[in-house]
Amino acid sequence: MAVYTEIPPAQLAAFLGQYELGELVQLEGIGAGTENSNFFLQTRAGSYVLTLFERLEPAEIPYYLHVTEWFSQRGIPCPAPIHARDGRILGELCGKPAAIVQRLPGQSIEGRAATEPEIIALGELLGRMHLAGKDFPERHRNPADFSWCQEMARRLLPKLSPDERELLVEEREAQKFWPRDKLPGGVIHADLFPDNVLFEGDRITGTIDYYYAGDDAWLYDLAVVANAWCSQPDGSLDKDMAALLWQSYERVRPFARQEHGLWFPFMRAAALRFWLLRLEARHFPRAGQLTAQRDPEEYRRILLRRQEFC
Amino acid sequence: MAVYTEIPPAQLAAFLGQYELGELVQLEGIGAGTENSNFFLQTRAGSYVLTLFERLEPAEIPYYLHVTEWFSQRGIPCPAPIHARDGRILGELCGKPAAIVQRLPGQSIEGRAATEPEIIALGELLGRMHLAGKDFPERHRNPADFSWCQEMARRLLPKLSPDERELLVEEREAQKFWPRDKLPGGVIHADLFPDNVLFEGDRITGTIDYYYAGDDAWLYDLAVVANAWCSQPDGSLDKDMAALLWQSYERVRPFARQEHGLWFPFMRAAALRFWLLRLEARHFPRAGQLTAQRDPEEYRRILLRRQEFC
Repeated sequence: MAVYTEIPPAQLAAFLGQYELGELVQLEGIGAGTENSNFFLQTRAGSYVLTLFERLEPAEIPYYLHVTEWFSQRGIPCPAPIHARDGRILGELCGKPAAIVQRLPGQSIEGRAATEPEIIALGELLGRMHLAGKDFPERHRNPADFSWCQEMARRLLPKLSPDERELLVEEREAQKFWPRDKLPGGVIHADLFPDNVLFEGDRITGTIDYYYAGDDAWLYDLAVVANAWCSQPDGSLDKDMAALLWQSYERVRPFARQEHGLWFPFMRAAALRFWLLRLEARHFPRAGQLTAQRDPEEYRRILLRRQEFC
Repeated sequence: MAVYTEIPPAQLAAFLGQYELGELVQLEGIGAGTENSNFFLQTRAGSYVLTLFERLEPAEIPYYLHVTEWFSQRGIPCPAPIHARDGRILGELCGKPAAIVQRLPGQSIEGRAATEPEIIALGELLGRMHLAGKDFPERHRNPADFSWCQEMARRLLPKLSPDERELLVEEREAQKFWPRDKLPGGVIHADLFPDNVLFEGDRITGTIDYYYAGDDAWLYDLAVVANAWCSQPDGSLDKDMAALLWQSYERVRPFARQEHGLWFPFMRAAALRFWLLRLEARHFPRAGQLTAQRDPEEYRRILLRRQEFC
């Protein structure tokens, strides 16, 4: 259960009163999501999502809302923020930063493997997202970039088993020497897992949960997606699916010369990142964290299987 | 048939190339609409509407696109413009100003009378639209306002039958003395007929065709809607429906003291406007106008029946 905050009706009414969305019909907590309290909000005007930000610094939040507004305006299906009467997109509710965003149609495919048409749609969408974000004017560090990985590895080492420690040291050393700069890049979603993509048939109707977005190499985002969508239960890569993803992405955003040869190293780097994120949640849980933790082992297996290629 | 312009595939591809919407899947002309060439545009990214502006001055068009973007950002369902890669919302195609906007779900109820829940939803939506537009920063004259009516009446008089002429002279004189200024107002849609409102069940999922929008008294917009949605075939007002409309609107936007007593005069003024618009289309047809003309008689009947009340 990921709804942390209970909202008293009077406070909700006062908050909604700042918007032009009419009377409340229903508010329903959403179980998914790990960082915020999310609610399906139905008013006389339509269906929205209400988010209370539980983790992010208030100063950081506008970036994510601006990114989704920008993408939405460019035809990338994502939850554009709703403006209050005074134009603001970020308010306060129950003492927390709060925003209302569009609710998108469609369903995630979570719980089953993606089909070929779904992977093709995903590759194309990711390419379009990258190109659409090219001129986005705000800069924002990828909050779990390489330097974060190095620091998190340092903090985690004393907590790990000997096997884990050996793998982590090996990866940290190996990845130090991979090129990262001067690759084509811009805004990346950085967390486009199956639960963050909504489909109607083979068509993508929504991409959600932009709260790990930041600036980084585009290839890195593609590698995150390849690991999350094209891995088999033993961690090995489904190469046919990964090839489809790559090809459909490339049709939209052709690769630059300096990106060739980095596809497998980047999948390995992306696997390390999610292994570290999950180890962090296990070994340094945040106070009040109620969310089901994701298994770090899944990404240790993926990481080990990616070592086979580079 | 309201599709005026045939678009050569190469020009369409070049135009689409400015957006991040992926490859064309299908383009299909839309028969409805009287002022522009409209097409359902399907790309790999989703479903949109492509509009070629056939009548409006290029300098006027940004206003309408800004209005819909503003309303959309405030939760009023309407076709927000899609931005090209360089951020522009207005381009050029086949030598004409052209824009891509969102395609909204839902169906118009055209061809049947509205139900009570639909009228209630409509009144609420109109109230919300008026309040949502309150701080919209651009000013734009209602292109068919009272002074337009006076000028159009002058041009039409020599063309009309004696009966029509008598009615027009009477209305023109009577309406000169009605208060128009200092009433609460702002952006009004001014043409919210049944074909411009999309429903899913009783819920409004879209308001379209903002090309008559401008600044005017809010009550005037409500009067346009009352005539268009609550008139019986003989032109008489369905008073139960009009009362429902009024009440549901008022729940969202309470009336000011100076608006009381003006409801019936404004329905009469709005009826005159649409009678004149339709007479104009009949007597001064524009070159190349292919659209089915709407019958002025319908609005002459409405106008005559509104005289009964004031």
